[in-house]
Amino acid sequence: MSGGPLSGIRVLDLSSVVVGPVATQFLADYGADVIKVEPPEGDLLRKLGGASVTPDMASKFLHFNRNKRSLVLDLKRDDARGVLRSICAEADVVVVNMRGKALQRSGLTCEDLRAVNERLIYCRLAGFGQAGPYAHKPAYDTIIQGSTGVAAALARVNGTPAYVPMVMADHVVGLIAVQMILLALYQRARTGLGDSIEVPMFENMAAFVMAEHMYLRTFIPPLGGTGDPRIIDPESRPLPTRDGYICVSANTDQQVFAFFAAVGCPELKSDPRFCSVVARLNNVRAYFDFRSQALRSRTTAEWLEIFDRDSVPAMPYHTFESLMEDPHLRDVGLLREVEHPSEGPIWNIGLPNTLKQGGAREDYLPPPKLGEHTHDVLEEFGYSQAEISRLTAASERTSGATGTREGSSR
Amino acid sequence: MSGGPLSGIRVLDLSSVVVGPVATQFLADYGADVIKVEPPEGDLLRKLGGASVTPDMASKFLHFNRNKRSLVLDLKRDDARGVLRSICAEADVVVVNMRGKALQRSGLTCEDLRAVNERLIYCRLAGFGQAGPYAHKPAYDTIIQGSTGVAAALARVNGTPAYVPMVMADHVVGLIAVQMILLALYQRARTGLGDSIEVPMFENMAAFVMAEHMYLRTFIPPLGGTGDPRIIDPESRPLPTRDGYICVSANTDQQVFAFFAAVGCPELKSDPRFCSVVARLNNVRAYFDFRSQALRSRTTAEWLEIFDRDSVPAMPYHTFESLMEDPHLRDVGLLREVEHPSEGPIWNIGLPNTLKQGGAREDYLPPPKLGEHTHDVLEEFGYSQAEISRLTAASERTSGATGTREGSSR
Repeated sequence: MSGGPLSGIRVLDLSSVVVGPVATQFLADYGADVIKVEPPEGDLLRKLGGASVTPDMASKFLHFNRNKRSLVLDLKRDDARGVLRSICAEADVVVVNMRGKALQRSGLTCEDLRAVNERLIYCRLAGFGQAGPYAHKPAYDTIIQGSTGVAAALARVNGTPAYVPMVMADHVVGLIAVQMILLALYQRARTGLGDSIEVPMFENMAAFVMAEHMYLRTFIPPLGGTGDPRIIDPESRPLPTRDGYICVSANTDQQVFAFFAAVGCPELKSDPRFCSVVARLNNVRAYFDFRSQALRSRTTAEWLEIFDRDSVPAMPYHTFESLMEDPHLRDVGLLREVEHPSEGPIWNIGLPNTLKQGGAREDYLPPPKLGEHTHDVLEEFGYSQAEISRLTAASERTSGATGTREGSSR
Repeated sequence: MSGGPLSGIRVLDLSSVVVGPVATQFLADYGADVIKVEPPEGDLLRKLGGASVTPDMASKFLHFNRNKRSLVLDLKRDDARGVLRSICAEADVVVVNMRGKALQRSGLTCEDLRAVNERLIYCRLAGFGQAGPYAHKPAYDTIIQGSTGVAAALARVNGTPAYVPMVMADHVVGLIAVQMILLALYQRARTGLGDSIEVPMFENMAAFVMAEHMYLRTFIPPLGGTGDPRIIDPESRPLPTRDGYICVSANTDQQVFAFFAAVGCPELKSDPRFCSVVARLNNVRAYFDFRSQALRSRTTAEWLEIFDRDSVPAMPYHTFESLMEDPHLRDVGLLREVEHPSEGPIWNIGLPNTLKQGGAREDYLPPPKLGEHTHDVLEEFGYSQAEISRLTAASERTSGATGTREGSSR
């Protein structure tokens, strides 16, 4: 037993790359037995996630696939699909991110799988909802960012559309998928009924962006344009100091007036442009321009000390490198060195949140090699050595061939 | 009864601005009775979220506070704190985002509240975990973005640190808080025990960013630097066409080779720089530079038709305005005109996800006016008219005074 609130829950994860693996890793971290079903060539992220110590174990793959087991099944084959259905009969949750036609071809639709297990929670991560004209279209993080206003937000700042330099849509929608799966598990705990969930990336990210930037067009007729001016202002950024940058966020009158006093301009609290939340909102350019010039005389460390004393919310600006050395992260133990059986020592990103009664699982399963648990899982589900050999021998051949076609990751 | 999987769950929401309200709105959308406890001056977002039809009903406030009821309590007063504790005795979930000292002063720590209700799930949204040196520091979205590598990701693209032009940290951590609350509710359904949850923004966003951009420093010793080069490349953006932009995301060999063929360069599939996932990753600048020039000869609509036919993942680039007119969003009904009792017609952003068995709540509660439900809620909890009058009379006076100080939002 792994321990954790989801101990005893079995998840069959047919998803790949980021959106699905983010979701199932949360379930795995809290105790679910997540069986990651991979095609013979493996999850694309094994290669797409960069160089690795041994082939197909890219860093990004490692960060989204701990605490899971890898089962290779070639779902183009009838026997492999039969195996999958037999595992589904004993699973609690299935997560898929294939398109509709592929699901139908493989016999992996919700109807197919809930026919063998009516308590099953079937979660489909789709690019687009099935009730609209984009239903058939494929989706990846960037095209979702570009089509839902994420890139438009950057265009409002800089003039040119650009993607947020993170797989933000995948990552955010993965978090939302967890909500929906937990909601269905909670419901099932009360009613005994499984469920079918659809989580479309496009609709989710459109809602995410529009909640902020529909802004004055929320009202009918509109009270003004789209885009929150405080957020899309080009000066909404870390402020330059004598030796670098600092992050300051003064929002209430009390904080802003303390900021004005700290930078030597206490009289600005009476300036009609800056004397209230609404006044500053209506004069956001002037306010931000003032801020961007106000801190150049002292170092970041000096300002941090002053702002800490005067209760002005402020934090150091971190690069990726300095973040890894941050003293707070070190003390809370977010990053821990773990020994991966094949990759050697790696930094594992721990769980940021705590539950007092029932926390995370007690053990730690390193991110799996491709097909590492194929034999174990099939044996657990009652397959004989002969059956396992038939299934795995063929799969390994296919895997080798594809590996060559894609090239090694070193 | 509201219906929905969380029907019967009572949430006392003491949070404000975005991170908490995002979380509690999800609970409300799925049927929980969310009582939003506001100070006499109201949630800061009522003003900070922009202009409104009537005072203190900014668009951003509307999008994060539907399906909730507003109860004004001045928690500086003993009698108000007593009311709060008596409601907590009958609540399932409490959400707070105050700092430690304020919680202690108000008698709202986990220990205080679980003393009156051991089944209570107490969720504290903190800026920083309590086990590290930043525990006492205040947090807002931008300083979390700047200190967790979000601003650094943009610096890696453009040279200058900048915030993502969305309240991304608040919004993402709010989604994560929902996960933790649902996990605790699920656990309670099985064990009968409440729990205490801590969700620190800094640690959560550091984990979010580092999972992507720790990259080759994941390995000890490092295999290279931080930052996924595919993601932080300046050409990772919607591609210019003859009349605008288009979002294209070709990742597998099949998709990329179809893209090469569609743009009239089928021979590139044999180019050693571009012939495999790994080759393109190692030559990402050359690959992205090629893409950024390849589509200038035709219109976006022409390319969309070609890519759709050839199975190259592509979508139109949307501005905020064109997104609101998108035919898919229209057909799935994500944006719906609703009549707000005081604000008139507004666009409500619907729920992007579907659960077949048990979906969202059946009714729709418009985002509340400040203190709209104070009387009803207090009456429900057994307070007499005289007691309610005493509590509300004083609160209304304070509210009026603060409203004047901050100015009207029009």
